[in-house]
Amino acid sequence: MKDLHQMADASRQAALALAAASAEKRNAALLAMAQTLMCHKNEIFAANEADVKEATEAKLAAPLLNRLKFREEKLSAVTAGLEALADLGDPIGKTTYACELTQGLKLYRVACPIGVIGVIFESRPDALVQIASLALKSGNAVLLKGGREALRTNAALCDCLREAAESAGLPADFAQLLTTREDVAAMLKEDELIDLIIPRGSNEFVRFIMDNSRIPVLGHADGICHVYVDKAADIDMAVSIAVDSKAQNVAVCNAMETLLVHRDIASAFLPALLPAMQEKNVRLLGDEAVRAVIDAEPASEADWATEYLDYTLSIRVVDNLDAAIAHINHYGSGHTDCIVTSDTAAAQAFMTRVDSAGVYHNVSTRFADGFVYGFGAEVGIATGKIHARGPMGLEGLTTYKYKLMGSGQLMAEMKSGARTYTHRLLDEECPL
Amino acid sequence: MKDLHQMADASRQAALALAAASAEKRNAALLAMAQTLMCHKNEIFAANEADVKEATEAKLAAPLLNRLKFREEKLSAVTAGLEALADLGDPIGKTTYACELTQGLKLYRVACPIGVIGVIFESRPDALVQIASLALKSGNAVLLKGGREALRTNAALCDCLREAAESAGLPADFAQLLTTREDVAAMLKEDELIDLIIPRGSNEFVRFIMDNSRIPVLGHADGICHVYVDKAADIDMAVSIAVDSKAQNVAVCNAMETLLVHRDIASAFLPALLPAMQEKNVRLLGDEAVRAVIDAEPASEADWATEYLDYTLSIRVVDNLDAAIAHINHYGSGHTDCIVTSDTAAAQAFMTRVDSAGVYHNVSTRFADGFVYGFGAEVGIATGKIHARGPMGLEGLTTYKYKLMGSGQLMAEMKSGARTYTHRLLDEECPL
Repeated sequence: MKDLHQMADASRQAALALAAASAEKRNAALLAMAQTLMCHKNEIFAANEADVKEATEAKLAAPLLNRLKFREEKLSAVTAGLEALADLGDPIGKTTYACELTQGLKLYRVACPIGVIGVIFESRPDALVQIASLALKSGNAVLLKGGREALRTNAALCDCLREAAESAGLPADFAQLLTTREDVAAMLKEDELIDLIIPRGSNEFVRFIMDNSRIPVLGHADGICHVYVDKAADIDMAVSIAVDSKAQNVAVCNAMETLLVHRDIASAFLPALLPAMQEKNVRLLGDEAVRAVIDAEPASEADWATEYLDYTLSIRVVDNLDAAIAHINHYGSGHTDCIVTSDTAAAQAFMTRVDSAGVYHNVSTRFADGFVYGFGAEVGIATGKIHARGPMGLEGLTTYKYKLMGSGQLMAEMKSGARTYTHRLLDEECPL
Repeated sequence: MKDLHQMADASRQAALALAAASAEKRNAALLAMAQTLMCHKNEIFAANEADVKEATEAKLAAPLLNRLKFREEKLSAVTAGLEALADLGDPIGKTTYACELTQGLKLYRVACPIGVIGVIFESRPDALVQIASLALKSGNAVLLKGGREALRTNAALCDCLREAAESAGLPADFAQLLTTREDVAAMLKEDELIDLIIPRGSNEFVRFIMDNSRIPVLGHADGICHVYVDKAADIDMAVSIAVDSKAQNVAVCNAMETLLVHRDIASAFLPALLPAMQEKNVRLLGDEAVRAVIDAEPASEADWATEYLDYTLSIRVVDNLDAAIAHINHYGSGHTDCIVTSDTAAAQAFMTRVDSAGVYHNVSTRFADGFVYGFGAEVGIATGKIHARGPMGLEGLTTYKYKLMGSGQLMAEMKSGARTYTHRLLDEECPL
């Protein structure tokens, strides 16, 4: 077995080479990946059949088994994704700040790759291709740890990606597969070689990673999303937004978990909501004020902090906009929260004061997604506030460096006054 | 004594209020701070005298004692800094991405404060005013822990800043002072209330913080900066850049620690360098190839990884550009590194492949500084790659939120095809 430290060091070397590779080369590698996967599809399907057989014998739950299966349909989706990614603009090399500091001395801030990223992901094997290709597009190397059930499939897929990268003149070690929990534990210690960890998993799992590594973590906590129906809401719109936010897909992080209703509109709104939610088989929990208007089970304090990910909704009546904002900032998870109102001032106050990655006016919370936002591809959704927040596109996998170009300028000249600062902003791209 | 959890909660409430405060109000508070400090200068100076007296009795080293002293001159610098900060543009509210997702549905990414930031800083009391004012300018609340020796001065300064904020209609709790190490330990546990920790101190101290908190840390590691003299360097320019980078101020993180010299230019360059470094009393350590040309003590492997912060320089001869880049990526700290050359292709390779926050061509490493870069004010220098990298201006204290404004759009409509994505980029500011 390979030593994790050696693997991390190989990732570092691969990252240094990738940082100097042109966009043309990186895009060619993405197209080569699509081809290589098609060429080796029989090996991949055979590996996946072995994984599925073992998982079936181990009585893996049906939804997980479906996620594990990797056949023609998923392969087509994956190769189409690779081709679309090759077509996206280059996240690397853009100048985001340019300034003449003193005569003949020009500073440029230029987007560049982060370096080495460790990603721990769920059992879906298509996630491996997605993550590795996003990393390569943005010039990063990845250490990948997938679900145990998908080990053979992941190994077959990773081999293809490495072969394709090499055929395009890039280092195969841009992607390396970890296979054991011990590898993950060892990876968390390599803070000199690894720049970022992205754990995709439960809240507890993300916290475990944070507790056991110095490496920065971009994680995803709960998605406790709210819709607040203001007193100035259009009732039909509020009902349809509530139903879409809750029931269009209950198992996702951008689904609504708690509905807040202004006291003045409760007796008109709740009776309109009830049949619409009943039609979707949504179980309703409410506080006393809700239960005075419609039939609902009693909600407890714990419900306000629960991510059901199910056909269950907690409903609370609030006295005013301030109370709604306070509830969301206290119980919410900072993911996505919506106000339904025709009052622009109320919308503005809500959107300024609710401390969440997404603050919505008159639209379903289900729109919180990187593809929907126009990023082309999504790395994940970050619920922290550092580096990236909300749906993360390729930009989340980049950092920047400052390039300073002079002709012998010295600090001693600045201190003596022989030269002075000009600080003239420039509207130009970095030439090197 | 106040409970740290209560303090952190008060910071969170203050941050929520600050996030909704206008730029006018925040700037008025900064000007009020300058006035309040002038009004209370006698109390501040008395508190500082008591701190200095105790530190003198405890035989604090002279340079530290000088940093501790806070008299008229430092007060003037601090109030001038507050006035300049009030004049700087607002880091909050700028739209950095705008896109129509589908008809009538507009997405805006808008800069906003991070929230609550814990800052642990050195004994210099002027740092307290600097940090607290940068936080307020960018709409953040801070928990401040300064050096033990400056306790009375810091308390007097913090009281003034809180009074000034309140007089401008902002919460006094935007700034709160911690006084003990136990407070710091307790602060590190408040990951639900605190969004970011900025430790200003030694490398070991930053690592201690990272090991003991789930809260993201923006820290500053070593500054092991290099100058590489390429074979195509102008020798006079190379000598003056080397002298400025090493000796203009040896005690700072952007001073050069190791000089790399291309083998082909060593016999011409080193004899020109020697007298210039001798004039500045710089002690020279060199590898065998260096010592074959000039008089220098032998350098050991450990020297390549040492931040001297002193009149000492290690020098190494390298075979070519690749070897220089490999040396820097292996031994450097990713702070700031310079190539001196008249060969544009070599400069481009160096700047692309050296994995540092600052990559310089023909200019002293001493220019790595937030004020020099045109940011007006500097929060610190980040040597990690996540969130902010290199000299951090006010932008480093901000994050963003996504504001989505619709008229009842539903995900069910997108899935059924009743609506389609337009993803039309907009060139406009967020209206709310």
